[in-house]
Amino acid sequence: MSADAQFVTGAINAWNGHVKQIENLFALFNDEQMKQEVAPGKNRLVYLLGHLVAVNDGMLPLLGFGERLHPELERRYIAEADKENGSAPSVAELRAHWTQVHTALSTAFNSMSPSDWLAKHTAVSDEDFARQPHRNRFAILLSRTNHMAHHLGQMVLVSKPTL
Amino acid sequence: MSADAQFVTGAINAWNGHVKQIENLFALFNDEQMKQEVAPGKNRLVYLLGHLVAVNDGMLPLLGFGERLHPELERRYIAEADKENGSAPSVAELRAHWTQVHTALSTAFNSMSPSDWLAKHTAVSDEDFARQPHRNRFAILLSRTNHMAHHLGQMVLVSKPTL
Repeated sequence: MSADAQFVTGAINAWNGHVKQIENLFALFNDEQMKQEVAPGKNRLVYLLGHLVAVNDGMLPLLGFGERLHPELERRYIAEADKENGSAPSVAELRAHWTQVHTALSTAFNSMSPSDWLAKHTAVSDEDFARQPHRNRFAILLSRTNHMAHHLGQMVLVSKPTL
Repeated sequence: MSADAQFVTGAINAWNGHVKQIENLFALFNDEQMKQEVAPGKNRLVYLLGHLVAVNDGMLPLLGFGERLHPELERRYIAEADKENGSAPSVAELRAHWTQVHTALSTAFNSMSPSDWLAKHTAVSDEDFARQPHRNRFAILLSRTNHMAHHLGQMVLVSKPTL
């Protein structure tokens, strides 16, 4: 494997590891238990599920793979806080969206060469990218992995249900 | 910049960003406020400071840059939980250790070429590395950055002091 491909593989491994860890954690909680807050007054698990789906779904357009699969989640789970009044999908729907979005991302990642990862993402202009070449797709992959780690750190504060 | 160097730079940028964010957050709290828990019954900020110093200090030997600067922290902040009885350094000492460890790591990172990052880390044997080349130093950099993000996600649950 080329050196380039090794760096990309390392970052995709870290991504996959977090997707899996979060999936495994959410699987422990039934839909009712998903309404628990990670700390008093803080986000509920179900909100973090919606938030992570919405943020990761946004990677499809950022990486140049077309539109979001669930644009309807963007406002409710990114712009709005947990307890605002927007209508929300059911926990079951969010779980299905999680699987759908991460399957699509996995397919997208597999189609990319190392040099594709160093190309600009769609939220940066050609001019800015000429000056700031670090604003590439690889940076999106790393930052969205760290974003999952950030919220996973919060989710693990909730006691796991006893079987 | 070569493609290899761009991947490494991207990952070091993500590392530096987390070191800085955590530093800025800890700087908001005085030593007494550092005793707050991130959630009821969970780790205190001061413990997370010690834990991150101890874990990141462990990167020096893992990456082949000699011994830990503060081996005395390993047991207290990695093996032991927050409220066990081991003696602990003061908050001021931990803050100084944080700076020292991250300065040393920064120097180490700057001395490494892209191919150094793909070499095996010291906790994997030659045999295992031949079969599992993804167990390289780059993977350590990514995983320790995600580890910081994990705990940063917990720290931000604590209300910031009002000035």
